[in-house]
Amino acid sequence: MASTMKAAVVREFGKPLVIEEMAIPEPGPGQILVKYEATGVCHTDLHAANGDWPVKPSPPFIPGHEGVGYVAKLGSGVSRIKEGDRIGVPWLHTACGCCNPCRTGWETLCGSQQNTGYSVNGTFAQYGLADPDYVGRLPDNLEFGAAAPILCAGVTVYKGLKETEVRPGEWVVISGIGGLGHMAVQYAKAMGMHVVAADIFDDKLKLAKDLGADVVVNGTAADAIEQVQKATGGVHGALVTAVSPKAMEQAYGFLRSKGTMALVGLPPGFISLPVFETVLKRITVRGSIVGTRQDLEESLQFAGEGKVASHFSWDKLENINAIFDRMKEGKIDGRIVLDLAA
Amino acid sequence: MASTMKAAVVREFGKPLVIEEMAIPEPGPGQILVKYEATGVCHTDLHAANGDWPVKPSPPFIPGHEGVGYVAKLGSGVSRIKEGDRIGVPWLHTACGCCNPCRTGWETLCGSQQNTGYSVNGTFAQYGLADPDYVGRLPDNLEFGAAAPILCAGVTVYKGLKETEVRPGEWVVISGIGGLGHMAVQYAKAMGMHVVAADIFDDKLKLAKDLGADVVVNGTAADAIEQVQKATGGVHGALVTAVSPKAMEQAYGFLRSKGTMALVGLPPGFISLPVFETVLKRITVRGSIVGTRQDLEESLQFAGEGKVASHFSWDKLENINAIFDRMKEGKIDGRIVLDLAA
Amino acid sequence: MASTMKAAVVREFGKPLVIEEMAIPEPGPGQILVKYEATGVCHTDLHAANGDWPVKPSPPFIPGHEGVGYVAKLGSGVSRIKEGDRIGVPWLHTACGCCNPCRTGWETLCGSQQNTGYSVNGTFAQYGLADPDYVGRLPDNLEFGAAAPILCAGVTVYKGLKETEVRPGEWVVISGIGGLGHMAVQYAKAMGMHVVAADIFDDKLKLAKDLGADVVVNGTAADAIEQVQKATGGVHGALVTAVSPKAMEQAYGFLRSKGTMALVGLPPGFISLPVFETVLKRITVRGSIVGTRQDLEESLQFAGEGKVASHFSWDKLENINAIFDRMKEGKIDGRIVLDLAA
Amino acid sequence: MASTMKAAVVREFGKPLVIEEMAIPEPGPGQILVKYEATGVCHTDLHAANGDWPVKPSPPFIPGHEGVGYVAKLGSGVSRIKEGDRIGVPWLHTACGCCNPCRTGWETLCGSQQNTGYSVNGTFAQYGLADPDYVGRLPDNLEFGAAAPILCAGVTVYKGLKETEVRPGEWVVISGIGGLGHMAVQYAKAMGMHVVAADIFDDKLKLAKDLGADVVVNGTAADAIEQVQKATGGVHGALVTAVSPKAMEQAYGFLRSKGTMALVGLPPGFISLPVFETVLKRITVRGSIVGTRQDLEESLQFAGEGKVASHFSWDKLENINAIFDRMKEGKIDGRIVLDLAA
Repeated sequence: MASTMKAAVVREFGKPLVIEEMAIPEPGPGQILVKYEATGVCHTDLHAANGDWPVKPSPPFIPGHEGVGYVAKLGSGVSRIKEGDRIGVPWLHTACGCCNPCRTGWETLCGSQQNTGYSVNGTFAQYGLADPDYVGRLPDNLEFGAAAPILCAGVTVYKGLKETEVRPGEWVVISGIGGLGHMAVQYAKAMGMHVVAADIFDDKLKLAKDLGADVVVNGTAADAIEQVQKATGGVHGALVTAVSPKAMEQAYGFLRSKGTMALVGLPPGFISLPVFETVLKRITVRGSIVGTRQDLEESLQFAGEGKVASHFSWDKLENINAIFDRMKEGKIDGRIVLDLAA
Repeated sequence: MASTMKAAVVREFGKPLVIEEMAIPEPGPGQILVKYEATGVCHTDLHAANGDWPVKPSPPFIPGHEGVGYVAKLGSGVSRIKEGDRIGVPWLHTACGCCNPCRTGWETLCGSQQNTGYSVNGTFAQYGLADPDYVGRLPDNLEFGAAAPILCAGVTVYKGLKETEVRPGEWVVISGIGGLGHMAVQYAKAMGMHVVAADIFDDKLKLAKDLGADVVVNGTAADAIEQVQKATGGVHGALVTAVSPKAMEQAYGFLRSKGTMALVGLPPGFISLPVFETVLKRITVRGSIVGTRQDLEESLQFAGEGKVASHFSWDKLENINAIFDRMKEGKIDGRIVLDLAA
Repeated sequence: MASTMKAAVVREFGKPLVIEEMAIPEPGPGQILVKYEATGVCHTDLHAANGDWPVKPSPPFIPGHEGVGYVAKLGSGVSRIKEGDRIGVPWLHTACGCCNPCRTGWETLCGSQQNTGYSVNGTFAQYGLADPDYVGRLPDNLEFGAAAPILCAGVTVYKGLKETEVRPGEWVVISGIGGLGHMAVQYAKAMGMHVVAADIFDDKLKLAKDLGADVVVNGTAADAIEQVQKATGGVHGALVTAVSPKAMEQAYGFLRSKGTMALVGLPPGFISLPVFETVLKRITVRGSIVGTRQDLEESLQFAGEGKVASHFSWDKLENINAIFDRMKEGKIDGRIVLDLAA
Repeated sequence: MASTMKAAVVREFGKPLVIEEMAIPEPGPGQILVKYEATGVCHTDLHAANGDWPVKPSPPFIPGHEGVGYVAKLGSGVSRIKEGDRIGVPWLHTACGCCNPCRTGWETLCGSQQNTGYSVNGTFAQYGLADPDYVGRLPDNLEFGAAAPILCAGVTVYKGLKETEVRPGEWVVISGIGGLGHMAVQYAKAMGMHVVAADIFDDKLKLAKDLGADVVVNGTAADAIEQVQKATGGVHGALVTAVSPKAMEQAYGFLRSKGTMALVGLPPGFISLPVFETVLKRITVRGSIVGTRQDLEESLQFAGEGKVASHFSWDKLENINAIFDRMKEGKIDGRIVLDLAA
């Protein structure tokens, strides 16, 4: 095994990442070393690199949290995983395992969690450390490139769909058919839901249609809400992937009485809910953040069975800054996956 | 039986109600005539009389929807109730019985519902019509005066507490200890919850304490949120009875991760939710509107067992305009109940 | 309209049904008259005709409770349905609408319910009465023959699947691939579940496979339980349509920890559960009876969308006794539907 | 600190335990050493000592799994607990933390779990090892003697009550008012339930009444089921602590439609359910095994608040064989707690 690796490092917030050659880290007790074959690039990585959020990472650090590859080395005391296993490293790097959220299957809310590519080094590298209890096992027939986007985009929308409480046969609207939304359409169909896809671009709506959406609506239409209400009688649930309070408020209007809206995007600012209508129609609005280990396993399983596939393009680690530039301009279709195997 | 009755009638929105002597109505097929002994006065009655809401009643009409009394006469085809039964007539006058919400135990969301004292004549009268399938049966030992406020205020907060999904042993905050909130404290304790009471008046907080609240907090304190977080680790649920978006937003701050806030008040305007925090903490915000027949029966049962008692004062139908004036000024403590038995 | 109709009448328990010409009934207040085009034949009809169950119908009566056709006439006071509407009349003829089960979306448990073809005349006739609030609306593109078996067999297994609490992506075993089971396989797949089909006949297993079952197991195999445990890790839920305590007990063995078994068949006698294993593995066993109006609407919707189709054969009302004979001998594949349109 | 300790050891199944002086064990990485102050004695300990169950412990071993005391020493890598903390060591000694049950808040179903006093040494000793992530924190004001029985008896019935799905204001029957049942009555009341207590001894019923039971019934009465049905309309849930299939079957008869029975006792053999009634009444029967860490914390909290108190008697470790003799004869009232502090 090599002793050094290539990684994309944030040296200073808001500045270009630096491609560095550095020592491959050594797994401590209870840790594993992962040899990454691929990693997805997520909008959160850009926020991390820019230090956009209230609680910030500490440069220098390696972003990335959709890493997939092989277990390369076991730290002491690791027994439930073995070298060569195909795994994925998600945003939820590790959690305490015994607080109230951890005890109840909500480790994504653990107050002591570590986050990959944020509070600990991430997956924009050829190697990285992981907690074997928090990695995802990749289904045998799921290629690395297809698997990477499931680690964050996939599990996030899958969990968000669960959180809408829409049952098979009922209607869900997916608002925003981008990197997350186009996977949400597929998950929703695989879960037996009827799907409305909403976006402001017609080519995204066409994609949604191709992926199985039953109804599509362009959110810029003046009568968008009427269209959806007419086609469905009001949707039972809404999953908003669009990073826009405006899209959230429109999605609210698509709901029927007793409908539930789940938010997974992280726009700055506030969403305004009309109190009168929320009370009279018994509307539920809920945030949803990535997914637990159970959610991750399930979301990978759907992908492994071919029911969900991310539209992604391969790129190189060295191009990360250009990729971030295109991301800022909203010019990325589907997902970018970095090839780290070379 | 008399052939005429006294009633308080809205002749024109925003004008004083007129006390009139009018014919006692005749129950049609499937209806019953109720001889009212008492009725509560609710803020909604004031909104009805003023025509405040988007969908308005049609004057002339009789407001009131917390009426209790005896079944006085059966219309044709009525068999599951008999003359002399002690019953209460709630806001949900009747519903279609076979739409999606009606079929699933959510008749409060029926699109064809009629509302007592709004779309049909209400309980500010000595007699009134009711749908026997939608009235509440009063527990034997529950006096009429004590029963009246349960019909709307009681059932509303009871249902709202259920909607917070707080389980016995967990923490709930009741925000606003007025006519609704002081009953909510009692329901919450009877349901095994730990209760934080929040209000901006210390005498309300004292009342809450006397009624069993475990912790009280004055919402005007700069560190109100810190106080609650420290005392409880963050509450599992919040019931906001205060008719104020500001109180709603403060109550939001009291929640722990995965907490649920239920709104039962109907202030005009909007509530603003911070998207980032809602997503990261997986917060749920939900409206709740009165309660179903099942909720009503349960809420009456708690009162019948002496676990919940409304603080109310007797008054007379003839004083309704003065009562509305005091209501506008926020000068009513607990609930006003009109004595209609005289 | 004709004034008389043909019907198959039970004159005496255990004796052949008599095909009679009788007066078409007149709908009373709140009732409708239905002109039946088709009706399914269910094992329950045979039990009714034989007086097999503790609470018996009162001869003479007309069995049948999978009737589909047109609304032919409205009784007084009926407004939410109109002549010519395509509807289906299920086992749950009517319920009180205001008891605890009725109020909570469980009208199938109403103590005052009437049952079609049992406590009131059923669908083995050209015309019959129905309660418009309890009939199912047929999707436009669902033919009568295909619709009839949904009215009981379809809704029963659909509800039973819900009662297993299996979520999309999890495993359910369908035990018994007969008239009910072959529809259950389709519903389960449409609901996103992974399906194991269990039966003792290989041709039924082949049918199940054709209908989408992921795994099949012959229940006579000595290692049936090991096969299922190995293929699935233990199923999350089991739906037992086989009318056999033995099949129920085998299905129990297919479950993983925290698994749920739903029983929809009505064999005489008892099912034995091992207490130790039930406790240690936290197993849930649950009965499920037909489905509510909401369940019926949903089950019809799946059929209307072509996701579920019953295997049925047309036959004639006049052949009912021969059909019952074949039913007793277990010689019916799929479902028999009587053509009543002629 | 001493280097040796006293312990009660099973040297051979079915033989008297031997009180031995042995070395105090040393905590390994991730473990803690606990200095026990007290331990409850549970029927399971007797089963362990007799090797009654299919999967057996390996003598020599120390039974006991209701141990409470102080953290005496930390193994390497332990950080979330400190010396001197007051804790309790339950049946669920440790679990893998990352299997499907562990990930979803059901670690009691972990296939790799270790059990205190069974697969690893237990609490009939002055010292013992524990996994700090699986011990319970004792509320400050809860004495050791009162705390010990919560560790198994208390948490078991508390969890069992949750598993009945009975909500505040509804009816639950507690069948068997012994060491578990008398605590269940108190938990049920604290959770806002209405309680029926069933036992075959009148003095137990008197105790139940004193502890808050609303209705009591002697199970030997020929009309026991009628009594309960009349008093409650049928209970919503049943918790069977009696180790008797007969009691389980009677409890079944107490249920109303849609009722749920939870079993927590471990009698050998089978429970028989009538299929017809289970289906028609939509009855649920469910096993429940001890409780998770979250359940344990909650059950301790109720005790810490004085809402639940075990009736227990102090005894000495040296008397363990005599205690087991009395247990076999059913002569123990409430719970025996061994004083290990001396």
